[in-house]
Amino acid sequence: MVELRPGERLDSLQRKGYRIIQNENGFCFGMAAVLLTSFCHIKKGEKVLDMGTGTGVIPILLCAKTEGERFFGLDIQDQCVDMAERSVALNGLSDRISIIKGDIKEASSIFKNSGINVVVSNPPYMPFKAGEINPESAKAISRHEVSCTLRDVLREAGKLLPQGGRFYMVHRPYRLPEIFTLMKEYRLEPKRMRMVHPGKNKEPNMVLIEGVKDGGSFLKVEKPLIIFDDDGSYDQEVASIYG
Amino acid sequence: MVELRPGERLDSLQRKGYRIIQNENGFCFGMAAVLLTSFCHIKKGEKVLDMGTGTGVIPILLCAKTEGERFFGLDIQDQCVDMAERSVALNGLSDRISIIKGDIKEASSIFKNSGINVVVSNPPYMPFKAGEINPESAKAISRHEVSCTLRDVLREAGKLLPQGGRFYMVHRPYRLPEIFTLMKEYRLEPKRMRMVHPGKNKEPNMVLIEGVKDGGSFLKVEKPLIIFDDDGSYDQEVASIYG
Repeated sequence: MVELRPGERLDSLQRKGYRIIQNENGFCFGMAAVLLTSFCHIKKGEKVLDMGTGTGVIPILLCAKTEGERFFGLDIQDQCVDMAERSVALNGLSDRISIIKGDIKEASSIFKNSGINVVVSNPPYMPFKAGEINPESAKAISRHEVSCTLRDVLREAGKLLPQGGRFYMVHRPYRLPEIFTLMKEYRLEPKRMRMVHPGKNKEPNMVLIEGVKDGGSFLKVEKPLIIFDDDGSYDQEVASIYG
Repeated sequence: MVELRPGERLDSLQRKGYRIIQNENGFCFGMAAVLLTSFCHIKKGEKVLDMGTGTGVIPILLCAKTEGERFFGLDIQDQCVDMAERSVALNGLSDRISIIKGDIKEASSIFKNSGINVVVSNPPYMPFKAGEINPESAKAISRHEVSCTLRDVLREAGKLLPQGGRFYMVHRPYRLPEIFTLMKEYRLEPKRMRMVHPGKNKEPNMVLIEGVKDGGSFLKVEKPLIIFDDDGSYDQEVASIYG
């Protein structure tokens, strides 16, 4: 039996029968989170922190796809923590995933002694411009840099990760110069990048990035990831990611 | 009549009947230079500096493709300056193009009062590792950072350009994090980028970049430029660039 609160629904993740609780008022995961979990390389026994976990979709999918030992999902919003915790329990993953309420800006203190090897994040993409959005809104917090900025995410990941530790993020291509500059500032050397294009002859609308703490300077740019074929169906690779 | 020195040959540029002198021992232009001239936006009346002009192919092609008023080609190698000057004369372009012998590291002093609006460059791509290559070799100077580094190019362009002045460069994708970090350091904000892929499902091997002096933070990432179609012929867009 699953307890759903008003506005919530239960969706299949199409992996190992896992399901997830979502709320139509702002807490639905998107394609970005799914693509990010396929871009990540998580090794057996590793400990992984998801900064800004929302519904908890990233740790739950990483449990399905990898042999990582422990996953931590950090979120500042009570409603997310509550929803993500119920999804973890529902899938019987409470021994591998812990959902923690807290501020990304303090992640390096909160997880100081947790032995984190990998940080992943699907952070808010858009700079916060006061006056244009409602900073109380759950949707605003997950989309705009209301409660944390790109710099906060990268600073905390850089502080927390040991040498050789890995950082994975999905973001918007238009912010790439700022992303690379800040990653270098916080010693997360950009090592791998993949552009995500809605169609074959289209501009990219997402970028997947891997950084390595204190890594050497060499970025591997992978072939483009195309979402839709010309006939409007998922491209073969994306179809296989969705399982 | 064209005077050719030993090892030199005369090739068509397939634009306005222009031709260019090349030397098989290291002074042949490549596709990168041609693609860069198509990526550049040069406006009527503008003054353009090509840093490290080699054969002079970039100013000659920009003369053919744009209404730029004056073009300066800077190179440190005597043999390049000699060859490029003869190609300029051969095409009757001496009133629009000046080839200047000098060091990129001093470009901002050399061209201080020239009213340059745009800087373009197809610089050496590879970091110089002493011992691995012969720093006297002409090929080494055009491929490795023997006589100037990425930082030199960006510093001099940043110093020389006025606010709103534009910078265009072709480089290797693997150096993108360093490129963006240095561009920001020298106030050349990355504004437009296009990846060049040898084939549809291939990793990019070149990147075209536009920066604007003191521009705002927003990078437009364009759709990929594909060189070869599946049948091995030039893709339509590249075929039209080659004219």
